[in-house]
Amino acid sequence: MAKKILPLLDRILVEKIVAPKKSVGGVLLPESASASKVNSGKVIATGPGGRAKDGTPIPMTVKEGDTVLLPEFGGTEVKIGEKELFIYRNDDVLGILVE
Amino acid sequence: MAKKILPLLDRILVEKIVAPKKSVGGVLLPESASASKVNSGKVIATGPGGRAKDGTPIPMTVKEGDTVLLPEFGGTEVKIGEKELFIYRNDDVLGILVE
Amino acid sequence: MAKKILPLLDRILVEKIVAPKKSVGGVLLPESASASKVNSGKVIATGPGGRAKDGTPIPMTVKEGDTVLLPEFGGTEVKIGEKELFIYRNDDVLGILVE
Amino acid sequence: MAKKILPLLDRILVEKIVAPKKSVGGVLLPESASASKVNSGKVIATGPGGRAKDGTPIPMTVKEGDTVLLPEFGGTEVKIGEKELFIYRNDDVLGILVE
Amino acid sequence: MAKKILPLLDRILVEKIVAPKKSVGGVLLPESASASKVNSGKVIATGPGGRAKDGTPIPMTVKEGDTVLLPEFGGTEVKIGEKELFIYRNDDVLGILVE
Amino acid sequence: MAKKILPLLDRILVEKIVAPKKSVGGVLLPESASASKVNSGKVIATGPGGRAKDGTPIPMTVKEGDTVLLPEFGGTEVKIGEKELFIYRNDDVLGILVE
Amino acid sequence: MAKKILPLLDRILVEKIVAPKKSVGGVLLPESASASKVNSGKVIATGPGGRAKDGTPIPMTVKEGDTVLLPEFGGTEVKIGEKELFIYRNDDVLGILVE
Repeated sequence: MAKKILPLLDRILVEKIVAPKKSVGGVLLPESASASKVNSGKVIATGPGGRAKDGTPIPMTVKEGDTVLLPEFGGTEVKIGEKELFIYRNDDVLGILVE
Repeated sequence: MAKKILPLLDRILVEKIVAPKKSVGGVLLPESASASKVNSGKVIATGPGGRAKDGTPIPMTVKEGDTVLLPEFGGTEVKIGEKELFIYRNDDVLGILVE
Repeated sequence: MAKKILPLLDRILVEKIVAPKKSVGGVLLPESASASKVNSGKVIATGPGGRAKDGTPIPMTVKEGDTVLLPEFGGTEVKIGEKELFIYRNDDVLGILVE
Repeated sequence: MAKKILPLLDRILVEKIVAPKKSVGGVLLPESASASKVNSGKVIATGPGGRAKDGTPIPMTVKEGDTVLLPEFGGTEVKIGEKELFIYRNDDVLGILVE
Repeated sequence: MAKKILPLLDRILVEKIVAPKKSVGGVLLPESASASKVNSGKVIATGPGGRAKDGTPIPMTVKEGDTVLLPEFGGTEVKIGEKELFIYRNDDVLGILVE
Repeated sequence: MAKKILPLLDRILVEKIVAPKKSVGGVLLPESASASKVNSGKVIATGPGGRAKDGTPIPMTVKEGDTVLLPEFGGTEVKIGEKELFIYRNDDVLGILVE
Repeated sequence: MAKKILPLLDRILVEKIVAPKKSVGGVLLPESASASKVNSGKVIATGPGGRAKDGTPIPMTVKEGDTVLLPEFGGTEVKIGEKELFIYRNDDVLGILVE
């Protein structure tokens, strides 16, 4: 049975979105020529939330299913079976990408 | 459909303003000769606001449409399609430029 | 009589789970070929909980028996008899692994 | 139309005061021989005030028009047209110079 | 008259426990062959307790007579007569060793 | 007209006291042979007081006219006309020297 | 008239106790052979007490006349006439030495 990760506290589990570089025939896709160079991913799961210095609960600002804009650095890589996932902290997420 | 970034917490999304260096014919524009050397930009979008150490909500001090004076360093670059945008924290903004 | 460690404050005592590399005959097990590369372990015991900066008690988020996803670095090694155990802080645990 | 900077939070906008070194003929002015070697400036504009760690508003201690004693280092240079201005934080100002 | 040390605040006074390496005749004791490699000691005396950042008293979690598991590094050595003792902070103790 | 410095917040303005090394004739003064080697000074002016992290006003512990014992390092030098003065923070002062 | 130092805030003034190395004739005193190697001293004067981060007064834990166990490093040396004294912070004192 596959394993599932429940992130703790203010952590989120993210699967990165990699922009499609080339078409099947190797031709540079027009869309990708001007493809956005952003480090983004899909939120698979989130923790219940973090705590302030005095223990006060702090709500999450991203939720499962969001497409998020990630910082250039940071994140902990976790390989579950074939899947490469990453764990970030809620407050490290730069923004939410909406169509 | 174009993507839109919703900044999180106390972050702002900024498009930099680059002072016009030369006229079409390449002549140094008088205005630009004494052009201000400031790192400034237009606020495209802002997050809802940050939190103090004990979780208390902290209001933003800049809003969408403001022309802002940015610090020399810092800011995260984000390229969406052809547009080069930057993400800053509200408290890093030095001031608001008004005519 | 064997010694037992009661972790203090927000610490947890963990026995690491090492993925089986090879079968008895030395053949690379199919399961392990795509075995998850995670740093995980079983929680043997936990402390009562930590304290916020102002002394407020902070509850634990992992409990005895949990299988936990551990950070790449950190943890204090403790050898009790033949057993190699590790001590982590509650807040360093990335997530809980469930089937 | 000239641009104006509205400093944000606890920042102040300062125009530095440079002690006159030489008379028109290049003769060392007596007054300047023993001129004070202080890093000082005039406050052009101030922000509304900063915030404590828990968000409590913190009042400013310098105001527009004050002549202030500045620290040896620090300050962000901002060139608006021909004018060289500097941005400091309220709490970095050492003192107010009065005649 | 022998001197006694009363630890202050959240400090504890510890006498280290060194695992017996060899028998009288120099034969490696079986018990020690698989002796636990832990840095442990007996608590001789404790301070009254520490204070949180805002001055709130923080109770101790170890008491006189406890056998404690100590971190690999840290501790201040104090030699009183022939006795080598160590001073640690309450929160540095990893756990309590019970039979 | 001479300039006066009003220190801000928890700062104090100090004129250093330099122990007399030699008599007029260059003979080592007996008193100075065993002169105290302390970094001390006279308080010329003080700020109104500092603020705690949450903005709470913090009263000063030194006042104008006190002779104070200063730390070995630190202090900002300010030259006003011929006078060499120093600015320290209230909490950096080690003690008050009384006859 | 001799000068007296009134320590400020949570500081204490200490005269170090140096263990007697040799008898008058230079013979190693038996007591000193096993002399404790501790960095200790007598408290000459104390400040009124320190303040927590939010300004709350923090009481002292050592008083004038105590014999105190000092950390290996730290302390500011102050020479008053022939006397070599040291200034420490209350919280740096490891313990109180009692007979």
